[in-house]
This record gives sequence, structure tokens and C-alpha cells, in this order.
Amino acid sequence: MSEFQQRRAAASAALESRKVDALLVSSLANVRYLTGYAGSNGLVLLTPSGADFFTDPRYASDARSNIDCRVHIATSGPLIAAAAVVIARKKLKRIGFEPAWMNVSEHRRLHDALPAGARLHPAGGLLEGLRAIKSPDEIAKIRVSVKLNSEAYARTIGRVRAGMQEREIAAELDYQMRRLGADKPAFDTIVATGPNSALPHAHPSSRRLGPNDLLLIDMGATVDGYTSDMTRMSFMGNGRGPTPRRVRELYDAVLEAQLAAIAEVRAGVATWKVDGAARQVLKRHNLDKLFVHSTGHGLGLEIHEGPRIAKPPPVKKETSQANGKKSSPAPKNMPEEIFKAGMVITIEPGAYIEGFAGVRIEDTVLVTESGCEVLTPTTKEFVQLS
Amino acid sequence: MSEFQQRRAAASAALESRKVDALLVSSLANVRYLTGYAGSNGLVLLTPSGADFFTDPRYASDARSNIDCRVHIATSGPLIAAAAVVIARKKLKRIGFEPAWMNVSEHRRLHDALPAGARLHPAGGLLEGLRAIKSPDEIAKIRVSVKLNSEAYARTIGRVRAGMQEREIAAELDYQMRRLGADKPAFDTIVATGPNSALPHAHPSSRRLGPNDLLLIDMGATVDGYTSDMTRMSFMGNGRGPTPRRVRELYDAVLEAQLAAIAEVRAGVATWKVDGAARQVLKRHNLDKLFVHSTGHGLGLEIHEGPRIAKPPPVKKETSQANGKKSSPAPKNMPEEIFKAGMVITIEPGAYIEGFAGVRIEDTVLVTESGCEVLTPTTKEFVQLS
Repeated sequence: MSEFQQRRAAASAALESRKVDALLVSSLANVRYLTGYAGSNGLVLLTPSGADFFTDPRYASDARSNIDCRVHIATSGPLIAAAAVVIARKKLKRIGFEPAWMNVSEHRRLHDALPAGARLHPAGGLLEGLRAIKSPDEIAKIRVSVKLNSEAYARTIGRVRAGMQEREIAAELDYQMRRLGADKPAFDTIVATGPNSALPHAHPSSRRLGPNDLLLIDMGATVDGYTSDMTRMSFMGNGRGPTPRRVRELYDAVLEAQLAAIAEVRAGVATWKVDGAARQVLKRHNLDKLFVHSTGHGLGLEIHEGPRIAKPPPVKKETSQANGKKSSPAPKNMPEEIFKAGMVITIEPGAYIEGFAGVRIEDTVLVTESGCEVLTPTTKEFVQLS
Repeated sequence: MSEFQQRRAAASAALESRKVDALLVSSLANVRYLTGYAGSNGLVLLTPSGADFFTDPRYASDARSNIDCRVHIATSGPLIAAAAVVIARKKLKRIGFEPAWMNVSEHRRLHDALPAGARLHPAGGLLEGLRAIKSPDEIAKIRVSVKLNSEAYARTIGRVRAGMQEREIAAELDYQMRRLGADKPAFDTIVATGPNSALPHAHPSSRRLGPNDLLLIDMGATVDGYTSDMTRMSFMGNGRGPTPRRVRELYDAVLEAQLAAIAEVRAGVATWKVDGAARQVLKRHNLDKLFVHSTGHGLGLEIHEGPRIAKPPPVKKETSQANGKKSSPAPKNMPEEIFKAGMVITIEPGAYIEGFAGVRIEDTVLVTESGCEVLTPTTKEFVQLS
């Protein structure tokens, strides 16, 4: 049984608990997980008796040679219409779909194309739940991605000089990644210098790295479909003495928070406790209000996957005030997310002082039964460039 | 009035014809069009009296300094919930949304968060319709993107040698683009050699460019948000004589088709006629069955925008057979798409012979009243490398 067949078997086995006869898989990451398909237009109809894969003629020959389930080439019209024909032929009635991966237009079109008696049922998160726990083969691929990413960083940082533009440094990072064999960057590489580092999602600009500037680099590679994610800081000295104390203290506080969060990671622990560990350290340094995002996220075929490592969800307020009508069954008490062995996550606290500088430190981390393994090999010692 | 204010005014003026009091804009390209926001999490609520922009704290300082409408920072929860609060406060009733840019989960969440009396109405394509006609400023930006893209191609093709891997060439193309100032590639750069060129959406692989191989490069840049798109072919000789006749004939036929399509482009012409012009030439060369995609598409803030340059939609068949229930009001007769001056499109016919080779030739083209202007400066003469 191929890895893909195993995954489809595991997913099929979960259909019954969702009370559906079939699941229409429209998330491309989920499609890739189930079939290996890496293109931009694919759909899977998963049933207990097997899977049907749909794509368009551009991918016909590729799909026929590489995908080990029934392949349908939709020669005209959307894939959803081709899937509706198969649904009719198989007389499937309760069709699960992925509500976070189907837009309202597609949903309407699918609804209209279904045969009489067939109905659509939201069945989200089924594949994402399976994907959150990585197989040994997937972990091996993530290790490759993480190492390649760190190597591209090392090759680039060795060439960084005062006066380089943020966008030049970003171009170099992406180039080194690709030269080392990456499919592409896992997300738009962030290079932020000086005060720009205080913008947690800065775009690389034409600003030049100057003396006394912090340099924030947040980068990830996609290698054979699997992502990595790392943030590192360095400081461009002015050639006359040590790093200013304010910069050093900010860095040390964030690193302390990052290490405290990592120390908390272990199978069985609630993810919000890890977020809380980072926040607690930053609070002690009076920096918690400047930590404006969550501590981390899972990664794998996508750069953002489950679990979320964030504060526990607050008690709902803003919607209940505005809401005068009966609410649909919403998550009553959002269930706690609990770490499990085989999850791969980021740990990336930060603190951002507007107009001055920001610091974020991020590793890719594998959750184990007894704790975790930090996969990222790049040093977190404070680095001063010259 | 800023360019963004003008666009918002134009969009607001169209609300009434859609019978809505407001439009919730969730397409990030549409959000950027209306506000200039270039991040990954933004939402606009457009009303006749102005616009509200929503983002999360990561973008707070950036948004407050650069966006010239009311900025709301959603400190907890999804942007949609924050928008629902404003909808309630403004007592808006008929809320248009973009069905192709809102997934079923978000739609449900929004529906549940709305105050009593407010209802959601699909109002898709409003912004896309405006965006299809580019302003002089947008055309100038696309020209910059097209030129930069061609320059990156020229710098790379001069370095291509037999023995280079597809992925190495792709890495070099992307690097040159970035060095020249591109934000990023507009899509995953395609580099396909030899038989791989017969896969219209090949991924760059480790295959090495060999003698007697065609080399297909399909690339585009995003510069200041605006995209470009070009495909060029070249041939790696074997050092002993001219290009094989079969390759040359395939190239010449596709080029003839591409020029015939370009000759047909003019404001007022139906887009399918341009597609037909390319197909007709290929039919004469017995290649029409090997042209497995459409002739082109609009581009701008997105690499795929309206209009589509494709066959006229076929009479619906596949869905009506499967369908036993009353259909919702669908487009009865899909209206013809007609070229208008200021549209920017690609013209990119191709022919793909499995196991042998494929040829595609693509330019970015500006539609004018009297015809069109091919923006892409790169030669379409047949190029033999050595």
C-alpha cells in the first residue's frame, strides 16, 4: 500500500463519524496529501470504496502517470461539475465538503449540479486533523526543508554588508534557497532593518542596512512540498564598540521568552500553555503588550497549519451585542488544542517597539512524547555583523 | 482626490445597481485596488458615504499611516466580526459580498454575526469589472513590470548553457527579477526542457537542458503590485547543423497563430473571436487538438483577471443530466465578453505533442481603440542557443 493509499484509507475510515458517504476535498494541500498532486487545479472525491481525482487537460499526462487512484480529466467546465457526474453515477447522498476551502460561488454551483436527493454537509478539518500529526517520512522531509533553509541563511548572512537594501538581501536569500534545491520560498521572505523590524509583517523595501540597525530575517523554504520557518536577528555594528544596551535587552528578553515556550512543549500539554509561557516572560520585562501576535503554528504542506499556539479564545463579546437573531450551532466551548507527538510547529515570540526596533526569534520544532526537538540548527546567540 | 478615493467613489456609485447598501470586499486584490493595502489580512466595507478598512494589529502602524479611509484594527477575532459591529452601528441592511472570495465558513460566521434585519446578497464581480480597464497609472506600472520581466529573461538566457538543470535556470530567472526590483515572481516560473515542454504546467525539475532540446520559459514579475506574463522558446542546438524541421514547423505554426490572434485584438471585438483566430491557424496545421488551454487572460494586480480569451462557453450538458431539481437562477446566456480600450491581456496559444515537445508563445498586450499594443519587447524570432 502506498503512503497515499494509507492516507486515503485513514481519511475514509473517518467519513462515517462525520455522517457522510463521501468527502469532496478541495483544499489543494489536502489533495496533495491524499494523492501527491502538486498542481494548481485538482479535486478529490473520497468514498469508503476508493477515491476519484479530477483535474484539467493541462495536467492529464502527469496525473495519469503519477496518481494512484481513478483519474478524471475535465475537458470543459469546472472540476466540480465533473465530480457531480461521478456523485450521480455512484448514487452518493450525503456529500461532505470543506467549508473553509469552498467559496460561496462554488458551493452554489455544486449544489445546483447535484442529483436529486444528494445533499451537501460541511465536514471541515477532517484531513487537517490527520495532517497535524506527521509521519516519519513527512518529518524527514521537513528536516530537509529546515536544514536547507538554514543553509541558505548562512550563505547569505556571510555576504551581508552595511549599505545593502532589504530587497537585495531578500533576493539573495531566495536565490540561495533555490540553488540549494528548494521548490520556492514557503512565504514572502521578510527582511526588515532598523525601525522596519518593528513591523511584524514588513515587506522588504529599498531601505539600506545601516550602522546600529537590527536586521530581522524571517524565511522559510518549500522543499518537495514541505515547509520550514525561521526568524533570526542580527545587528550591524557601527565599528565602534558593543551593541547598545537597549537592543541587547530587547533581544535577550525575547530569547528568554522563546526558550521558556520551547521548554513547555510536550505531548499532552495544551497549546495555550506554551503561548502563556512566552507571554509571562515578556510580561516580566514589561514587553507583553508589544507581543502582538501568537506564539506559533503548525506547518507541513502549508506554512500555516494546526495547531495554533495562541491565547485561549476569549469569551465572545463583539458578535453577541450585534446579534439579534438565533445563532447557528457554533463551537460552544472551543476545545483545547493539545500537543501530540509528531506535530511540527513554530515557536516565535516577538516584541515590537514602534519607531525603534522589533525582535522575533523563531524555530521549527518537533513535538515528542517527552518534550520536543528544535529542528532549526542556526544559532540563537546574538550576532553582530560588521 | 487620491487615486484610491476615485476608485472607491466609482465602486460606491455601482452599489445601487446591485441593490445593496454596502459591499464587503474580501478579495485581497480588490482591497489593494481600493486602499493600496498590500498585506495578507485586510477587508473593506464600502458604503456610499465612505469606506472602512479592517486589518489586524500586525499591520496597525502601516495601515494608520498609509490608508486614506477609516482604519479599524481587530485586536481579537476575525476581521469579519469587526466588520459586523460597524454594519450594526451604521444600521446597514442589504450587505453585498463577494461570493468567489468568501468561503462557506466565513459566510456562515458573517451571517451569524449580523444584526437582526441585515441580510447578505451576493454581489460578485463589481470590483473586477472596474479593474479590467486599467488607468494610465496602472498601464504605466504594467509597462514597468513587463520590461523588468523581459530584462530578467535577457540576462538569464545569455547565461544558459547545455547541462543546466531546469530548476537552476528557474532560480536564476527569479533572482534576476528580484535584483532588478521585482516584489516577486507573479507565479511559479516555468522552465521546461525537451519533452517536459509538452506539459503546459510543468514544474522546473532536475532535468538538464540537452542538445536538441526545446527550452520553454514562462515567467512573470510582480512589480509594485502589478504583474507581467511572457513565454518564450529557444532551442539548444547540437553544434552540428540547423534546428530539426519538425521543431521549426511546430514553432512557426504557433507563432503564426499568436500573430493572428494579436491581429484580431481591438476594442469592441468579442474575446472569443481572438481565441478563434489562433485556433483556426492551428487547425490548418493540424495542431488544434493539441492546443489544450485558452488563448489568454487579463492581468493586473492579479496574474489572472478578466477578460477570458477563450472559446465561447459550450451549451451546458454535464450538469443538466445529473440535475433533477430546480436550478437556481444561473447565467442564462453567458454574455459575450467584449474588449475595451485599457484592458491588458495575454495572448498565448500553444501546441503540445506528448513525449516530444510543446511550444507556447506569449506576450502581454494592451487593448486600444484601434487595435492593440504588444508591450513585451522580447523578440519572437526563433532563437538557437549554443
